[in-house]
Parts: sequence; structure tokens; C-alpha cells
Amino acid sequence: MNEAADLANQVTEIAYAIDTFYFLICGVLVMWMAGGFAMLEAGLVRAKNTTEILTKNIILFAVSCVMYLLFSYHLMYSSAEGGIFPSFGWLIGAENDLSDVLAGGEDAPYYSARADFFFQVVFVATAMSIISGAVAERMKLWSFVIFAVFMTGIIYPTSGYWTWGGGWLDAVGYSDYAGSGIVHMAGASAALAGVLVLGARKGKYGKNGAINAIPGANLPLATLGAIILWMGWFGFNGGSELKLSDVASANNMAQVLVNTNTAAAGGVIAALVLSRILFRKADLTMALNGALGGLVSITADPLSPAAFTATVIGAIGGIIVVFSIITLDKLKIDDPVGAISVHGVAGFWGVMVVPFTNADASFGAQLIGGVSIFLWVFLASLVVWLAIKAIMGVRVTEEEEFAGVDITECGMEAYPEFVQSSK
Amino acid sequence: MNEAADLANQVTEIAYAIDTFYFLICGVLVMWMAGGFAMLEAGLVRAKNTTEILTKNIILFAVSCVMYLLFSYHLMYSSAEGGIFPSFGWLIGAENDLSDVLAGGEDAPYYSARADFFFQVVFVATAMSIISGAVAERMKLWSFVIFAVFMTGIIYPTSGYWTWGGGWLDAVGYSDYAGSGIVHMAGASAALAGVLVLGARKGKYGKNGAINAIPGANLPLATLGAIILWMGWFGFNGGSELKLSDVASANNMAQVLVNTNTAAAGGVIAALVLSRILFRKADLTMALNGALGGLVSITADPLSPAAFTATVIGAIGGIIVVFSIITLDKLKIDDPVGAISVHGVAGFWGVMVVPFTNADASFGAQLIGGVSIFLWVFLASLVVWLAIKAIMGVRVTEEEEFAGVDITECGMEAYPEFVQSSK
Amino acid sequence: MNEAADLANQVTEIAYAIDTFYFLICGVLVMWMAGGFAMLEAGLVRAKNTTEILTKNIILFAVSCVMYLLFSYHLMYSSAEGGIFPSFGWLIGAENDLSDVLAGGEDAPYYSARADFFFQVVFVATAMSIISGAVAERMKLWSFVIFAVFMTGIIYPTSGYWTWGGGWLDAVGYSDYAGSGIVHMAGASAALAGVLVLGARKGKYGKNGAINAIPGANLPLATLGAIILWMGWFGFNGGSELKLSDVASANNMAQVLVNTNTAAAGGVIAALVLSRILFRKADLTMALNGALGGLVSITADPLSPAAFTATVIGAIGGIIVVFSIITLDKLKIDDPVGAISVHGVAGFWGVMVVPFTNADASFGAQLIGGVSIFLWVFLASLVVWLAIKAIMGVRVTEEEEFAGVDITECGMEAYPEFVQSSK
Repeated sequence: MNEAADLANQVTEIAYAIDTFYFLICGVLVMWMAGGFAMLEAGLVRAKNTTEILTKNIILFAVSCVMYLLFSYHLMYSSAEGGIFPSFGWLIGAENDLSDVLAGGEDAPYYSARADFFFQVVFVATAMSIISGAVAERMKLWSFVIFAVFMTGIIYPTSGYWTWGGGWLDAVGYSDYAGSGIVHMAGASAALAGVLVLGARKGKYGKNGAINAIPGANLPLATLGAIILWMGWFGFNGGSELKLSDVASANNMAQVLVNTNTAAAGGVIAALVLSRILFRKADLTMALNGALGGLVSITADPLSPAAFTATVIGAIGGIIVVFSIITLDKLKIDDPVGAISVHGVAGFWGVMVVPFTNADASFGAQLIGGVSIFLWVFLASLVVWLAIKAIMGVRVTEEEEFAGVDITECGMEAYPEFVQSSK
Repeated sequence: MNEAADLANQVTEIAYAIDTFYFLICGVLVMWMAGGFAMLEAGLVRAKNTTEILTKNIILFAVSCVMYLLFSYHLMYSSAEGGIFPSFGWLIGAENDLSDVLAGGEDAPYYSARADFFFQVVFVATAMSIISGAVAERMKLWSFVIFAVFMTGIIYPTSGYWTWGGGWLDAVGYSDYAGSGIVHMAGASAALAGVLVLGARKGKYGKNGAINAIPGANLPLATLGAIILWMGWFGFNGGSELKLSDVASANNMAQVLVNTNTAAAGGVIAALVLSRILFRKADLTMALNGALGGLVSITADPLSPAAFTATVIGAIGGIIVVFSIITLDKLKIDDPVGAISVHGVAGFWGVMVVPFTNADASFGAQLIGGVSIFLWVFLASLVVWLAIKAIMGVRVTEEEEFAGVDITECGMEAYPEFVQSSK
Repeated sequence: MNEAADLANQVTEIAYAIDTFYFLICGVLVMWMAGGFAMLEAGLVRAKNTTEILTKNIILFAVSCVMYLLFSYHLMYSSAEGGIFPSFGWLIGAENDLSDVLAGGEDAPYYSARADFFFQVVFVATAMSIISGAVAERMKLWSFVIFAVFMTGIIYPTSGYWTWGGGWLDAVGYSDYAGSGIVHMAGASAALAGVLVLGARKGKYGKNGAINAIPGANLPLATLGAIILWMGWFGFNGGSELKLSDVASANNMAQVLVNTNTAAAGGVIAALVLSRILFRKADLTMALNGALGGLVSITADPLSPAAFTATVIGAIGGIIVVFSIITLDKLKIDDPVGAISVHGVAGFWGVMVVPFTNADASFGAQLIGGVSIFLWVFLASLVVWLAIKAIMGVRVTEEEEFAGVDITECGMEAYPEFVQSSK
């Protein structure tokens, strides 16, 4: 009797350890996406603005982690069920007791509460990383840091609470497995507000509708960044199953990884072939953004589609990204890295395509979710950006922009020895 | 009674979850090797051909994934036992049923079928990645893409089926744990055929047997690529144990990682000391290729050797790579990154050294395996390359080669702001 | 009865497999730190010394692995309890028997002996990687390799044995969870000795106390390196729990990852804000070193502090690093990458802060540990550096230093096509 009970307890503990480890490893992969965004953005801006974008990427990650620790994790996951306004609270709560774990039953914790925090905290940083690329090459560094405090402290966790924290969008039936809307479209919505407040880079749009290409300074870095993101996404989507330790969950995680990978592959192929048709060239940056567009597209439901369906969803995502980048440029919305198209437009596509393969989702709920997340994040961000603009300004001076923000903001060049052409 | 059976089932499920997770994490590490190849190759070509090699690396990964999903996984793993010709079929089959898992017995599935696909699909991409480096700086991008379709759709899965899919080479007793022959030498054989069809880069070989060094544009990238490959190889070899969840399997995985690491270390030391002796310089690119040569050498059997033996096997691999690179240059076989030497020659060494430490392997079977994989992949690739040459050409024009393929193929430079010397 | 015993054995085997896998994955993450150091250092030196620092990073990793395999693992972990002098022996011992595992009890092995070696071997390489940065841009390559043989063969494993191998420091009660002192301060102590023997780079310190900034050539690489280190640190600290497979251990690992991450975040914020105050600029290199300083600070005890306390410990670490870098420059101790400040000074802070949160540690024991590790590694290294200086020299000639060590030591430039300004 006792031996049997001991063994049963040991098995429960082992399952708990596995699920905890699974969360932590997935969290490590998502943290790695911070490196992906940093490299992607550093590769796609001009040399003279590279140190600054790297600095922003490092500090935004740090700010996200500390804000989430201080109170936004509480905001997002400890507020009332079905509500709109999250409730304030500090820090991240207690770790699970062994006795609660062994008690079993529906409500027994089956993985470390700290592992849950670790997995969630790197998601906030992802949402914030999306923004830095779109406002690159002209935004003041410290204005961006202030925005990061509000975005990661209030804006993101509020709409995050609506679904993942059990708020009103969850009650409505909005379905978003790993966050096409909650994370990616949210980041892109804040980015769009920022870009509208900031305006385009000098020289980007000429007279008579001319659109001037401003090529990135270091495409191997950008490619590395995209591949890192692709890799990190296995943790991003794979961890969002939230459990590993039984056959059904393990099978689900495997399906999620297969779909995540093949959606990215579909995005690459579609975007590269389309760019060949449209521009007569194999456009590397479009291929990279196609991969990311495919990844974002599948993120709202990487589990329900069959693998080939996931490929198609990703391919359509890749096509959407290419056309969206072209369209935003026509609208003179200047996004140096294509973040709004990749995370916003493809994110919305990802949200809306869920009901095609997932019977538990409805178009109505998805539309409500997508639109309300966009409106909340966009409007709240707009208010914050405008307030920052009024108080301390958001844009560097014309002279600073011409000279490059690296020297004026950071006091150091990214590539001090490589002579730069006049581009 | 019921409780005991429930517990036994739970344990079975947990073991399944662990083995699935182990496969998936190893697969993520192998996927990361795509980044390694991209960085290695981008670092070892000239600046003017960098965007194109990056584009090839991204698109070849995507094509590999989609082809393998569509039918080459079926080709490789669902064909008749002991045969030569694989049988055609679509997609990747059904996921395991819980009842089959719990049934137990020899044939019961013990990890997700989707995880198996995920682990295998990234191997195809590895084989294909080997090729892009060897044909760099002069091959048309879309001709390469077409070749990738045939390589990953038919050529690789056919010889893969021979051993890992239970075909005739498996019946003969050919032993290749993680694919020194099946993956690495296969990739190198296709690369060799491509290089012979393409010819050398303009200016590589001068009059009177002069061999002109064409240095890579970005050695930190190349180093990063090699370290990524070293890291990813822990998944490549470690996952090839195919099971983790008992003491023997876990011990085996640990032995495999120790041997993989130390073989790479042996390769570095041997290649660096040898290059010091031969060239009077500590040649970084030889050290990197030595690491990779060590890794390829141990891949056919990273389990049987003791750790110090693995170091020696890797060190010999590193020496082989150095001499092979020198020899291929004398033969005017122009391989800009040394891929044929690293993956082909060291791969053959890896195949042939297995019987020294593994009593279950024989020199005869290893020779049959090595030679037949080489012949199949080389000849089939040659036919495909020649057909592509006849239909659409494989080589860019002399003017395009001089100007660099980045502008003509991709329409963008990799480092547009860094002034380039006339090299 | 039999069935129950079989099930219990199976559970024991599964736990063993999980703990082994956990060690191996953490080891892979620590191995990845070799890439982090390589990129960090390559980014922070001048272009003309980049190939050489990359070569040193590759060869030091290889030498560390082979020395540790040959005898330093034995030195560190198979010597007498409570002693000062380790005992010599070869290789890494036998793998665990299944019967010993199943026997159970306190002394039964619960993870692969090979996995233990794999996890420990990458730590040696970390300690050695710290040194290469500090002596960059002026040390002879092969002199450095000789030093690596002594450091990884004798010096590091001796003080490592004192604590982790059960030697006298362990008996004294010195507490160092993942090695703020044993690994990081040890590496920095050897680096300090090397820098004192070598002297400063030409031109670093001018007349009248002038300190000339020598900016790094490639800040995106340096940033990538720091992010890789941040990521790898999850394995470094997370694996040092040494067990995963029960609720308490899994909770501990989660706490360790949360604390490691937030200490780094604290270090970034503190260092960036401080550099803004001191220099009026957002100094990226200080932010990166702040992250690393935060990581080093928490490494002696990433488990005991609550998450917010860990943030503060890391933030103080970041502040210490900034002031230490300034102070060392005033003392004309020329450390191109700040390794002595990051790993040494912040490492000592990490060691000394342990008793604030960990009731099992005492200031006395920590002081004894910190001082004795420093003295041993510093003095032993000094002897080795001086001996190498006497026999083969440690410093390149003034002409070689001016021309850059890439050409003279390695025979190749890192960026041969990028025209370099006269900096």
C-alpha cells in the first residue's frame, strides 16, 4: 500500500518535473528571439543607426522583464474572470507546494509557477521587440524606453488578460493559441501608432509619390536574425500547448512544431516567387519577411491544421506580407523592417483563419478579438506616444537623423573602421 | 488493480512524452544547423556574392521541408524492406493512437510520429545545405532551386531509404548511426557533380598551375557558422539514438554527445597544428573546417568509440580535410567553402572507421555502403545538373560573375555601405 | 509483485533519463557560450585583430575539452575529500551500471556519468574563454595556447576541486552554486595576471594620464555575443541544480532561470542609466557588460534570492562593472573587452553577496573562498605567464601589433574587402 502510494507520488513528481522543464526550455528558445529581433533590425537599418537599435533591443528586453516581474504578470494572470479592467498587484506570487501537487485533481498545479512566469515574461519582450524595428532610425532612445515601460507595464498585459488571463475575450470565445493577435498584432498596433506619430524617415518618400529604397547595411545579420526567430518560434508555439507529459499533449507539441516549420517554409517560397514575379529579382528581405509572415500566420492556431494546410496558411501569410509592405509604402507609412506588415497584417490573417480548421473557433469571436486588441493597443499607444511627444519629444533633430543616431544617442559607431559610402 | 494499471499507463505516457520531447529538441538543434551553414557560407564567399548565398540557404531549407512533407518522407520510410526502389506516396501518415501506445510490446509506438517527421525533415535540409557552399559564387539561383527539388524529392530519400528506411543497404549490414554517408557524403557527392558541371570560378586557377586564394569576406560570420554547426550536431547525433527514456539509452546519448564534442575538438587541434606546419600560419578557416571534419568523421558511429578514441578519429578527420582541400585545388575542383572535403572525404573516412570500434559493422558492408551511396548520388545528381544545364543553364554569365551575383540575381548588395577594395 | 517491481524500476529509469537529458541540454547551452565569447570578443577588438581572436576562441575550446578529458576531470572530481592537492589520474571513468542505478539509496547514481563530464567540460572552456578577451590584440597566439594547456590542465581543476570536488573549501563551507568564484573570478584572475605580464596595447594610454578609447570594430557581433551568453547562462546556472526529476528540484531550476534572467535585466538597466549619467550617452558596450555583470553576480547563488532581490543583485553588479572598467583604465590595466571587471570584480561581489539571502553561507567562508581562489589562480597563472614569457615570449613585436596580429599570426584578414579607416 505505502509503496504503491510512494510510486504514484514519484510518478506525479516526475510528470511535474517534465512539464516544468518543457516550459523552461521553450522559454529559453523564446528568450533567444530577442537575439533574433536584434540581429534582424540591426541588419536592416543603415550603419549609422545600428548601435542605437542594438541598444534599444537590449534595454527593451531588460525593461520588459522588470516591469513584468514588478506588476504586469499579476495584472495579466491574477485579475477577475471575464472582466475588462485588470487588477493591480505586485510581483509573481508563491511557488507551488509539494502537497498541492500531490493532492492531484483538476486544479492541482502540474508545473512550476516560476516556470510559468519565465515562459510568459519572454513573450512580453517579443511584443516589445516588434516595435523597435518599425520606429528605427529616427526615434529618440529614451522616449522609446519610456514607451516600453507603459507598453509592457499596462498596455500589453491588459489585452493579454482579456484572453490568456481569462478576461472578457476569453469568455466571448476568442481563440489565439500562441498569440498571432495577443502578441504579434499587439506589437504591430503599437508600432503603427508610433510610426504615425513619428513620421517617415527623411528622404524615404520623394516628390510625385517617389519611394526611395533605403537598403539595410548588413544582410547576413538580418538573415541570421530571421533564422533565430524561426528557431525560437518552436518554443513560442511549442510551449503554448502548456503541457507535455501525456501522449495527447506530446503529440500536440509535435504537430505544432511541424506546422510552425512548414508554415515558415511556405511563407519563404511564396514570398520569394512573388518577389521574382513582381520585381524580377529574388528579393532576400522579402524571403525573410515571408518566413516571418508564415510564422505569425500559423501562431493563432498551429495545432488544428494538417501539415500541408499549415504550409498553405503560411504561404498566404508570405504573400500578404509582400503586398502589405508595398501598400504601406504607398501610404507613406515608413516601417524600415516591415514589422507592421509581418506582425500586424499577417497577424490579423492568422487570427481570422483559425475557424477554417478549428471547429471550436468562430469568425465572429475572432473578428471581435482581432479588432478589439487592435483598437485597444493602437489607441492606448497613440495616447502614450503623443504624451511622450508633448513632454520630451519622440523624434531626433534633422541634423541628428542625417548624422545618424549612433553618435548622438550612444556616442559610438557600430562599424567605426569600415568606410561608408555616401548612401 | 485498476489503480495499478492506471499508474502503469501513466508511466508509459510519460516515457512517450519524454522520447517525443527529446526528438523535438534534437530536431530544433538540427534546424539551427541551417543557420550555421548560412553563416559559414556567407562568411567564406566574397561580399558581392553574399546576398545570393543567403537567399539560396533560406530557399533550400524551405524547399527541403515542403518536398519532404509532400512525398519524400513517405519515399524514405514507407517503402518495402530490403529493396532498391522506393515506393511513391503522399504526406506523412497518421499520428499514433493512444491505444496503440498503451498496448505495449515490441511494435508499440513510443514517440510521436510527427516528432519523427520533424527530426528527419531537418536532416534533408542539412544534406542540401552542404551543396550550396560548393557551388557558390557562380551558379544561377533558380537552377539551384530546381536541383534542390530533385535532390530533396528523389535523390536523397532514395539512398536514405536504402539504410534508414530498411532497404537493401540495411539488409547488407551497412552501419551509419547519424549519417556520415547517408547525409554528409550524399550532400558532398551531389556537390561534386555540380562543381564538375559548373567549372571553377573565374580567376581561381591561373596559368602554370597557379592557385589563387579568394578569401572570404567575413570570418566572424564563418566562425559563428562553424560554432552553430558544432552545437547543432549535438542534436544531429544525439537524436539519432532514437530513444532516451531508459538508462541504457540515456547513457548512450551522453556518450554520443561527449564523443561528438571531443571529435570536433580533435579536428580543430589537428587541423590548426597541421596548417601551422604546412603554411607557417594558424589558419582559421582550416581550424573551422577541421572542427567540421571531426564532426563528420564521428557521425557514422558516435556511440561505440571511447572518448579518447573519438578524439583521435576526429583529429584524423581534421588532417584529412586539410590535405583534401589542398588536393582538390590541385585538381582544379573549385569548392569555395571546402564542403566536398569536409562532408565527402571526411564522411567516407567516418563510414570506413566504424568497424574499428563497432563489432557489429564490417569493412565490406561499409565499403559497399559508402561506394553505392556515392555512386547513386553522384550519378543521379550529374544527370539532373546536366539536364538543368541543357534546359536553363547553370552558370551565370562572365559579366554577372565579375559584377557579383548579388546584384544580378537578388537586386541588392549584402553590405551596401561598406566600400569594397578591388579584391 | 513482479509487475510492481518492474514498474518501480521503469520509473527509476525514466527519472534517470530525465536527469541525464536535463544535464545534456544544459551542457549544450553552456557550449553555446563559446560562441558568445567568440562573437563578443571579435566585436570588441579592432578589425585587424579579429581573425586571431576567433582562432584563439576556437583552439582554446578544443584544448579545454581535450585536457579535461585526458586528466583534469579526474583531478577535479576524483581527489580526496577535504584536501588541497588533487590527485592525478587519466580519463573520465566508467559509465553507471543499470544495477547500481536500480539499487537505489543515497549513493545510487541518478544520471549518466558521461552527462556529468559533458556538463563540466564546457565550464572549463568558459573559464578559459574569459581570458582570451582580456589579453586580446597583443598576445602571441601560440603562447596563449600553451597557457590554455596549463590553465585547463592544472590551475582551474585544482581550485575547482577545492569546492565542487569536495576539497578543503567545501569543508570550510564556501558556497558557490554555479561558479561566480570558481569559474568566473578564476578566469578573470588568470586574465589579470596575463594582462600585467603583457602590458597595455600601444596607444591605449597617452601622456599625462590620457586614456584613448579603442572602439570595437563590429558592435552587432558584440551584442550577439552578449545575448548568446545570456541565453547560455540558463544552462550554466540551471544545470548547476544537478537534479530535475522531483518537484523541489524542478521548482529550484525554475527559480534559478527567473533569477538569472532578471539579474541580467537589472544589470542592463543599471549600467545603461549610469552610463547616461556619467557620459551623457547610452553606452551600448556598458549595457552589454552590465548584462554580463548581472549574470556573473547572481551565479554564486541564483536560487536563494527572491526574483526582485536577484534584480537588485544584478543591478549592483552592473554598476560595479561600470566603475571597475573606469578604475582599471585609470590604473592602466588594459582589458579590451572588460573581462576582468565583468567576471572578476562582479564575480567577487557575487561570492560575497550570497550570505545576504542564503542562511547556509557565511561571510567568513565566502571571503576565504574568494580570496583563496583569487590568490591561487592569480599566482599560479603569473608563474606560468612569466615562464612562457621567458621561454617563447608572450607579446608580438611592435610592428606586428601595429600591422595587426591577423596577418602575422593567421595569415588572413577577417574583413579583407572592407576598406578600413586609419583608426
